[in-house]
Amino acid sequence: MLELRLVQGSLLKKVLESIKDLVNDANFDCSATGFSLQAMDSSHVALVALLLRSEGFEHYRCDRNISMGMNLGNMSKMLKCAGNDDIITIKADDGSDTGLCGFEEGFLIGDVVVEVLDQDKIADFEMKLMDIDSEHLGIPEAEYQAIVRMPSAEFARICKDLSSIGDTVVISVTKEGVKFSTQGDIGTANIVCRQNTTVDKPEEATVIEMQQPVSLTFALRYMNSFTKATPLSNTVTISLSTELPVVVEYKIAEMGYIRFYLAPKIEEDDEETKPQV
Amino acid sequence: MLELRLVQGSLLKKVLESIKDLVNDANFDCSATGFSLQAMDSSHVALVALLLRSEGFEHYRCDRNISMGMNLGNMSKMLKCAGNDDIITIKADDGSDTGLCGFEEGFLIGDVVVEVLDQDKIADFEMKLMDIDSEHLGIPEAEYQAIVRMPSAEFARICKDLSSIGDTVVISVTKEGVKFSTQGDIGTANIVCRQNTTVDKPEEATVIEMQQPVSLTFALRYMNSFTKATPLSNTVTISLSTELPVVVEYKIAEMGYIRFYLAPKIEEDDEETKPQV
Amino acid sequence: MLELRLVQGSLLKKVLESIKDLVNDANFDCSATGFSLQAMDSSHVALVALLLRSEGFEHYRCDRNISMGMNLGNMSKMLKCAGNDDIITIKADDGSDTGLCGFEEGFLIGDVVVEVLDQDKIADFEMKLMDIDSEHLGIPEAEYQAIVRMPSAEFARICKDLSSIGDTVVISVTKEGVKFSTQGDIGTANIVCRQNTTVDKPEEATVIEMQQPVSLTFALRYMNSFTKATPLSNTVTISLSTELPVVVEYKIAEMGYIRFYLAPKIEEDDEETKPQV
Repeated sequence: MLELRLVQGSLLKKVLESIKDLVNDANFDCSATGFSLQAMDSSHVALVALLLRSEGFEHYRCDRNISMGMNLGNMSKMLKCAGNDDIITIKADDGSDTGLCGFEEGFLIGDVVVEVLDQDKIADFEMKLMDIDSEHLGIPEAEYQAIVRMPSAEFARICKDLSSIGDTVVISVTKEGVKFSTQGDIGTANIVCRQNTTVDKPEEATVIEMQQPVSLTFALRYMNSFTKATPLSNTVTISLSTELPVVVEYKIAEMGYIRFYLAPKIEEDDEETKPQV
Repeated sequence: MLELRLVQGSLLKKVLESIKDLVNDANFDCSATGFSLQAMDSSHVALVALLLRSEGFEHYRCDRNISMGMNLGNMSKMLKCAGNDDIITIKADDGSDTGLCGFEEGFLIGDVVVEVLDQDKIADFEMKLMDIDSEHLGIPEAEYQAIVRMPSAEFARICKDLSSIGDTVVISVTKEGVKFSTQGDIGTANIVCRQNTTVDKPEEATVIEMQQPVSLTFALRYMNSFTKATPLSNTVTISLSTELPVVVEYKIAEMGYIRFYLAPKIEEDDEETKPQV
Repeated sequence: MLELRLVQGSLLKKVLESIKDLVNDANFDCSATGFSLQAMDSSHVALVALLLRSEGFEHYRCDRNISMGMNLGNMSKMLKCAGNDDIITIKADDGSDTGLCGFEEGFLIGDVVVEVLDQDKIADFEMKLMDIDSEHLGIPEAEYQAIVRMPSAEFARICKDLSSIGDTVVISVTKEGVKFSTQGDIGTANIVCRQNTTVDKPEEATVIEMQQPVSLTFALRYMNSFTKATPLSNTVTISLSTELPVVVEYKIAEMGYIRFYLAPKIEEDDEETKPQV
């Protein structure tokens, strides 16, 4: 028996919105410690990892580990039926019954029920689960050469602006700031955000932790896709190392995080000395 | 001579917006008692009936009954030129003159003039009338097994939400509440609105008058079309009987109503015992 | 060396927005007195003339006259990257260096750099200039038979409304007011704005200066395109004479203007006596 209740149902809607365009089908893994997901995008270039810890839910019961394969677009459609102030409950039964049961009587293996509770309205949505093959990648803890924390809306704006000019972004970090650059047919663009910790609100700060300067190139298409998670958090953390995929992380207050991993483009690793392609 | 004036011109705009997608061409019938319309949708499945009583107009003069055939899309385009606070006057002449006259001198049979009055702006729009064959159906007064009154925005939201999951809605009324259900490839959905009369504002109540429980199936496409009338009224009344078309009614304050009629889908009349198609 | 700085960067964004759909490529001419542009639309029917006087800029340096050929769509894309409160600097070098230099070291002939300054963010955009053939038309000062000044939003609304009914607008000016008329398949429309100078705010006035009544016909497509300049000014001035193109002018506060010129349609010059086409 699985039963999760979130008073702030809009959070679940935002989570689905932020990953459904990147990943079509994925397994949600539920255990006693929390609700998690790990999936590659359809072209196997980017990886998304989600964690919602059990303590963050108003009610969390998970008798044994289960993996629920879902089409994220369909799940998102169902969650859209919930208002932003509605309470959302997710239920799944791990019993052995094989007939299709109604909502009041019980749940099948292979079915998830989303229940939405308004003051005088109860809605329940029952969705067939899917059997999805997936291998869970171990993501090793790593030391990063540079970690940038900045306002998530600012990062989203920069990725959007640059993608009207070029296809890739070079992210270069020095002690003074982080530079986002692109180049396209119509010209070039450079946007520099200076380190700035003397701000009115902590979430407006741009903070740089740097072991050594780093400059890496990424596809803007993926960066723009990651920024769909912007509504989940006021800040974003970008962790960079020459030999590792970048990690773009949005913390989910008191519950967990959503992290996107993307490998840098190799041909532009050393753009100063190599000929451009 | 016909001359109608509405200070609250936005009301007329909303009426046109609510029916122009359902019905292309229709006759507006004007008599001493009011301004009315009755028309089938183009696939002859739904019926719309509109009444605006003469008392609701600031000025109402109709010397003899006339029927004005109009393309509702064109009429809507013309009314869109009026601001929401503008005064709208509709004029038509029933004289025998055959030449096309200007606005200042008079009007032809077969032409309707919409005049829009702002403080320092006068606009007039002259539209050719059409000759439309139509038979006026007598709609008998009927007793309904169940009548639900609920907030119109809530009903619109439910129809929109369900149509992202399925094509039809089963509306089931019991003493406790009204249930809207659908079923589609991605799963099923049930939304229950409980009877609730202890609300701050009367228009937020959900009130059920029931002779006997009823459960009927309708095409969501039409229901969604009816909800275009939502801006006309805070509440909607849904009248249901097993043998009759459902009536979805939006009252127009102090003037009349707009009513939509739709026959239930027969094959799902008794979904518990019959095999599903 | 050219260097212009505008604290109110949004103004430059609005200028580009108002002309980029009418003109694809154009030369911006910079001299000691100001920044100007004159260009025909791609079908050589309308002319746009822009002037931003040097006094209106916070910083203005132009050592010798230069002409910068730009694709206005690309320039607009780059300016969109500036926030509405950002400071925008435009730089171009008239030196003889031929290599492509970075932003910090200098600028090429044939490149323009747009620099955007936020508190903790600096962005620079470098765009290749184009070589555009253009002849500068002398526009003689003229006496107009009628000059109408009215709220720009009102004029935009009227052009938009009429274009849902017809393709051309007849603008007729008398001492009492200005009439905008159109005719289409679905009917006719006339909108009269009366002269009105007793308004709360001067920009809400409709003021008519008239030597003699005038009635001219124009393509609504172009009028609608001109009204994209509406965000630049609260009022618009329309200057009309029988033998001349109409001038639709939006003043840019304390800096200059944007003027659109359009020849009247001849076949309807004298609509009272000639047969309609």
